[in-house]
Amino acid sequence: MKQLDWNQLDESARRDALARPTQSRTDDLSGGVARIVAAVRERGDDALREFSAAYDGCTLDALEVTEAEFAAAEAALDPVLKAAIDEAAARIEHYHRATASKPVAVETAPGVRLERVVRPINRVGLYVPAGTAPLPSTALMLGVPARVAGCRSVVLCSPARADGNCDAAVLYAARVTGVHRVFKIGGAQAIAAMAYGTDSVPRCDKLFGPGNAWVTEAKLQVSVDANGASIDMPAGPSEVLVIADELANPVFVAADLLSQAEHGVDSQVILLTPSKAMIEKAASEVEKQCAELPRSEIAVKSLAQSRLILVDSLAQAVDVSNRYAPEHLIVQVQDPHALLDGIESAGAVFLGEWAPESLGDYCSGSNHVLPTYGHARSYSGVSVSSFQKQITVQDVSAAGLRAIGPCAATLAAAEQLEAHRRAVTLRLAALDARETTEASP
Amino acid sequence: MKQLDWNQLDESARRDALARPTQSRTDDLSGGVARIVAAVRERGDDALREFSAAYDGCTLDALEVTEAEFAAAEAALDPVLKAAIDEAAARIEHYHRATASKPVAVETAPGVRLERVVRPINRVGLYVPAGTAPLPSTALMLGVPARVAGCRSVVLCSPARADGNCDAAVLYAARVTGVHRVFKIGGAQAIAAMAYGTDSVPRCDKLFGPGNAWVTEAKLQVSVDANGASIDMPAGPSEVLVIADELANPVFVAADLLSQAEHGVDSQVILLTPSKAMIEKAASEVEKQCAELPRSEIAVKSLAQSRLILVDSLAQAVDVSNRYAPEHLIVQVQDPHALLDGIESAGAVFLGEWAPESLGDYCSGSNHVLPTYGHARSYSGVSVSSFQKQITVQDVSAAGLRAIGPCAATLAAAEQLEAHRRAVTLRLAALDARETTEASP
Ligand SMILES: [Zn+2]
Ligand SMILES: [Zn+2]
Repeated sequence: MKQLDWNQLDESARRDALARPTQSRTDDLSGGVARIVAAVRERGDDALREFSAAYDGCTLDALEVTEAEFAAAEAALDPVLKAAIDEAAARIEHYHRATASKPVAVETAPGVRLERVVRPINRVGLYVPAGTAPLPSTALMLGVPARVAGCRSVVLCSPARADGNCDAAVLYAARVTGVHRVFKIGGAQAIAAMAYGTDSVPRCDKLFGPGNAWVTEAKLQVSVDANGASIDMPAGPSEVLVIADELANPVFVAADLLSQAEHGVDSQVILLTPSKAMIEKAASEVEKQCAELPRSEIAVKSLAQSRLILVDSLAQAVDVSNRYAPEHLIVQVQDPHALLDGIESAGAVFLGEWAPESLGDYCSGSNHVLPTYGHARSYSGVSVSSFQKQITVQDVSAAGLRAIGPCAATLAAAEQLEAHRRAVTLRLAALDARETTEASP
Repeated sequence: MKQLDWNQLDESARRDALARPTQSRTDDLSGGVARIVAAVRERGDDALREFSAAYDGCTLDALEVTEAEFAAAEAALDPVLKAAIDEAAARIEHYHRATASKPVAVETAPGVRLERVVRPINRVGLYVPAGTAPLPSTALMLGVPARVAGCRSVVLCSPARADGNCDAAVLYAARVTGVHRVFKIGGAQAIAAMAYGTDSVPRCDKLFGPGNAWVTEAKLQVSVDANGASIDMPAGPSEVLVIADELANPVFVAADLLSQAEHGVDSQVILLTPSKAMIEKAASEVEKQCAELPRSEIAVKSLAQSRLILVDSLAQAVDVSNRYAPEHLIVQVQDPHALLDGIESAGAVFLGEWAPESLGDYCSGSNHVLPTYGHARSYSGVSVSSFQKQITVQDVSAAGLRAIGPCAATLAAAEQLEAHRRAVTLRLAALDARETTEASP
């Protein structure tokens, strides 16, 4: 891990210190994905079966997971894991219900009542990857807010294993969260199927979830097609930034850095501390703990892109963190709350020594689908709102029109939109005429 | 205007009836925009000046609007228009403050406190087009929520006229809403300047606002670049759908249809009514009123793509409207509230005969930057939240870790993320050790 002193760096070295691994949309990738998307749009389920054979190595007859398969998955599942999924789902639901948008009504002028109502996105598609290991937590993080939002059609795609089955824990998690239909489809073809629909897979309005380069490229392609589907947020490799003071426990600091580093070879981990001693201690702890990890090969590669950075104060640490805008920000200092007000851009924040990022990944109740790659500057993590729309409803009485109509007419005239002006003045004239009639003997 | 009977149409004819004008991203347009973006990134302000000369026909020395220019604009402005801008800004602010997200805190387990905090997007860029007429209302609709959100750097770009000045009403509206800096730049070059920054124009994290095909293509291009900027929503031509019963006033119905039709030749207007008589009356009123409009040429073209559709009931009208997902939905029926619960997808809804869409465009207080082209199925209009991020903060005590740590450890093990598991179990072990020490004599 590179060790740097922030105050010894010039602007360009600072930029390098916080640079992320380059993401390149190669023409190969774009073209390959475009061909898969086109094949799914043209040949539907047939194309899906061919891709499953080619990429997942399995021959599928029915693409949809059956009731019997759900029951078998539940029966096969370790009861301890089942209980953990139930427990996590309950806390995720608790937090997501508490943070769901409520309707608001306000009178902006006498007779002008504006109401903001909330409606679910009707048809949503969730993607749960299946790489080296199953990811039931992702099914929870997408399925729970979809249910809380009230989405009518919640579809989930996850690749089948070579034996033609989806992972039992993923199926159980999908069921627990009330996902309506699950399909054994992975990769760019799953994204295309949900964006455009096939005979088996219902079309979705918005797609959610992480994935490999093919999946994220497919999400990008369907999101820029006006007839495709919108998506949750741009993708990027996972990352953590830890701010630690000299009293932090280096064992915990190292464990948190490693829990991010094991995600993938392109994951990035950064430590900011005003303590030179902490840098040394964290570096040696990372080395020690890393050696014991089954995924140490991945972690070693990702640590190579990671940095331990000396800053002159915790205030400077917060400034540098805001500049980086990390997906996960862990604050292991004596008084973490004192730094909170200064934190501007981060996907999720973990305060104090007893709040490892793992809790947020699994079961504190918050969502783990978060903006990475600096997108935390302008994006929020997935929430119930991600599965809803907010609509303003305007309820205007005759008195209301009288109150605000003239203002609208003046502005419409300034913008040379005469029909807009007349839609107001015709009504005002009708009101005047009515009053004259009513006033006459 | 085409007249159709919904219940006489088969599925494919129904699809055609609700089809929107095709949006095509031509290679010419994409390539042209890509060249402009590249030029701005490479040559910064010099490129901006060249494009201003070429496209806006003006020679600019300073790109930024000066204090003297703001003062001159304010002095030149018609006092009635100035008062209307002030009045509209106040109501827009009222509604946007009322609907801003508030922080939420909740304990999901003893010792596990989750807080959702709200932070402004620091640097935002607003685009206000200047086509056939100035658009001060757009400056209000973007500037007010940016201020309410607390954005630190609010930049606005709007093309200069040939005399090198921006429109006085737009400048005044920008000032009233507290926009920090205004630049006399238009088109794709303005979007590129705000996304990547130049010597004059500060770089922005997120860009907002409507524009022509060049502007919307530029927004799309910078939004898919991980080093570009995010954007408010995909663009599309403006549209209105009116639901009217037999007792609606056809004069008002026609005025509302026309106020949308005059926006542009690609605008789309649709009337849904269970009354055959209303279709006849609305059609003849549209013809009559259209002839009197200064923009009747535009309106006539857009009406050619528009439809008057007979439905069998108001309930069916709502179904068809949901399927179309209009930007603006006007409900001119005797009991409009009775239909509200059934409305699923729309940018904004106007209830009753005294609520023309013009009010929402200008001064009822709601935002007029709304999802079009069917995007109302999954997008909301611009709001204060569009200028903010929501961050989940996890505050976990030792007791909290004891309560939920085992659940996280079980799930981490299931996902074969051993470092995630250890970040929890190392801490639990430390807690155990501490207790043993404290318990020993
Ligand atoms: Zn993690
Ligand atoms: Zn309008």
